[in-house]
Amino acid sequence: MSVDETARNKANVEALRRLNEGTPVLTGVKPAGEVLPGMQPNKVLTSGWPMPWQDYSGGQRRSLIYGAMYEGLAASEEEAADKFATGDVLIGACHDHGCVGSVAGIYTASMPVFVVENTAFGNTGYCNFYEGGSPRRLNYGVYDDEVRDQLIFIEKVIAPVIGAAVERSGGIPLKPLMQRAVHMGDELHSRNTAGTVLFHRELIPHLLPLYSGMAGPVEETDRFLKENEYFFLRLSMASAKSMADAARDIEHSSMMTAMTISCNGFAIRVSGLGDEWFAGPPPVVEAQLFEGYTQDDIHWIGGESHITETVGLGGFAQAAAFALQRYQGGSAEAMAATNTKMYDITLGENSTFQIPFLGYRGTPTGVDIFKVLETGITPAIDAGVAGKDGGQIGAGTLRAPIECFKAAAAAFETRYC
Amino acid sequence: MSVDETARNKANVEALRRLNEGTPVLTGVKPAGEVLPGMQPNKVLTSGWPMPWQDYSGGQRRSLIYGAMYEGLAASEEEAADKFATGDVLIGACHDHGCVGSVAGIYTASMPVFVVENTAFGNTGYCNFYEGGSPRRLNYGVYDDEVRDQLIFIEKVIAPVIGAAVERSGGIPLKPLMQRAVHMGDELHSRNTAGTVLFHRELIPHLLPLYSGMAGPVEETDRFLKENEYFFLRLSMASAKSMADAARDIEHSSMMTAMTISCNGFAIRVSGLGDEWFAGPPPVVEAQLFEGYTQDDIHWIGGESHITETVGLGGFAQAAAFALQRYQGGSAEAMAATNTKMYDITLGENSTFQIPFLGYRGTPTGVDIFKVLETGITPAIDAGVAGKDGGQIGAGTLRAPIECFKAAAAAFETRYC
Repeated sequence: MSVDETARNKANVEALRRLNEGTPVLTGVKPAGEVLPGMQPNKVLTSGWPMPWQDYSGGQRRSLIYGAMYEGLAASEEEAADKFATGDVLIGACHDHGCVGSVAGIYTASMPVFVVENTAFGNTGYCNFYEGGSPRRLNYGVYDDEVRDQLIFIEKVIAPVIGAAVERSGGIPLKPLMQRAVHMGDELHSRNTAGTVLFHRELIPHLLPLYSGMAGPVEETDRFLKENEYFFLRLSMASAKSMADAARDIEHSSMMTAMTISCNGFAIRVSGLGDEWFAGPPPVVEAQLFEGYTQDDIHWIGGESHITETVGLGGFAQAAAFALQRYQGGSAEAMAATNTKMYDITLGENSTFQIPFLGYRGTPTGVDIFKVLETGITPAIDAGVAGKDGGQIGAGTLRAPIECFKAAAAAFETRYC
Repeated sequence: MSVDETARNKANVEALRRLNEGTPVLTGVKPAGEVLPGMQPNKVLTSGWPMPWQDYSGGQRRSLIYGAMYEGLAASEEEAADKFATGDVLIGACHDHGCVGSVAGIYTASMPVFVVENTAFGNTGYCNFYEGGSPRRLNYGVYDDEVRDQLIFIEKVIAPVIGAAVERSGGIPLKPLMQRAVHMGDELHSRNTAGTVLFHRELIPHLLPLYSGMAGPVEETDRFLKENEYFFLRLSMASAKSMADAARDIEHSSMMTAMTISCNGFAIRVSGLGDEWFAGPPPVVEAQLFEGYTQDDIHWIGGESHITETVGLGGFAQAAAFALQRYQGGSAEAMAATNTKMYDITLGENSTFQIPFLGYRGTPTGVDIFKVLETGITPAIDAGVAGKDGGQIGAGTLRAPIECFKAAAAAFETRYC
């Protein structure tokens, strides 16, 4: 028997509508432990599908250990490893806790997260904060005094100021900022320059009245936002998570609703196939590496920032962001070609995110797993790349592996035939 | 005898170097009467080469009259006309007073101007403020209570706040903002969205401490900057004027250093030909007009904002600003083609302003009048378009008339052969 095409098409129309109509609004900044569904004081969240402790290796394993140490759940790497093994410290998958991980994506209970409500559908997405410009960051599998101090600075200075400003604002609608950022050279995954400046500007009227009571922190926050053009990524990710989640669990829909990377490979989730992850090998990568690194240094320690591609941004909006060439290599022609190819595997065009270079055509949005299989074209993903010894070592375009789509299609046929 | 090519080439290398190395820094906001060279309390400045009163007609004549009334130099249109005729009220050309006019470009002594120092060469460029989003503005030949109130608001609220913030800053380097804005979709003539946001962000640390003493005006300034994406144009113009002026008066140089429009046509100035203007008919225009207007409504009342094209921006950077399609029509392909053609008539590539779409190639910079004549390609200019009855009625691309270049070349041959 074959899949019911009519039911699938109808379901996919609905899934795309939900992706398109999502309306992310930043409503607060809160500790992860207070707001993430299912979060616990002794839990560390990481990217990837849920796995037992023994399945984590290399940099992602180290990142989990570092997270436990940062949170004070263990005093040493050995103690942390023991506690993960015994279950005294728990591991959670970001996607199961309403959030998405950037690279290793470490969340602990005390870390501040953005609370982004999808007001059109009533669900919420979360993301933790960008750590700063150093290539040595916890989410890239590095931990030392400097990394810890920076995380504390984010928690004690940046997050409270932005939280207070957001509270004063009554909520900051992010979709208009994202739309405009795409007209200003961002694809909101690997380029967030315009998004960051526009968000910064949005805060001004709420920062001004805070200044007399907390001049130092407000000035530091202003400086941090100015120095970190990647800042908006986490708002883009939380927004995308909130939009993608609203398109989940539509019976008969073959639209992809999430992608994830762990130390063990790549996986996708499909709207009509519930919570199941369909795994494959790690992505193929074409990256521009920072000086001194080679392809052999690339190391997979997790990643879920490509929730942006899932909603029609990132690699699906490269032709809006030619400035990215400098960061991740390639040429304008190649970027336009990569971007345009994505129309072949998507259900439609985004009604909000448009590409001026393509005559304001909406970005290709809503990957259909069957279109991927028919064309052999897999999603293009803009991403940062981690190194063997931790830290960011470059950036480039990843390609999702076809195996995930094959596995998902098989499950789809089993379920709906 | 023919022109000395060696001397010309050498002079043009120097002229281009000066254009490229200009370093505009915003150092203050001051009343025009205090800082513009040659400004007087009873003088009104307008766009175009210097002309006697009787040569002004239509909207530009009305704009001069309105300027005199705004400044309190005349109580009625009749009185203003009489005083211009008798010389009780003087007329000046913007370009002769260190500034450039947007459209009619009306400056009076009380109006605030940006003071932009070209710190590399020690000269200064000036420009008055963007009036606001209404298509009915003094510089578009409209004057009524609303226009006057808005000009007073700029003078009494916006200019003092920005002036105080700039003073606190110790000077705001504009070139880095301009460079980045070009990477963010601006060409800094008809699109200034990124420039405005970046400038706004630059002000924040200096606005914060001003807030306790002047909360209302600071909030109004924040709002004005947010609502007016064209704000940065005047900083772009003042910067360009300061850069172009530093390349003037280089013996043997055939590089164009200014373009101007008046009610009587178009004119250019050339580095090796001193202060002389070489005039031709009005520009050819391909515009997208606001609803309800036709080509017959287009009316020339002046314009010098294309000082931006003179330094390698605007029409010479269209391929950096595909988002402009919506405002001035056209397509990405046409914009890229127009932009690329400008390399055929310029002396080199800009060392600061680069176009991501063209692989970060520097914008075509420094128009050589002889290259224009050899190729028949004239400068492409992004511009707003005024209507017969005043007000802005659209935007588009203008082409400088070839006659100006022919006249300049004839003068060049006379002088240097």
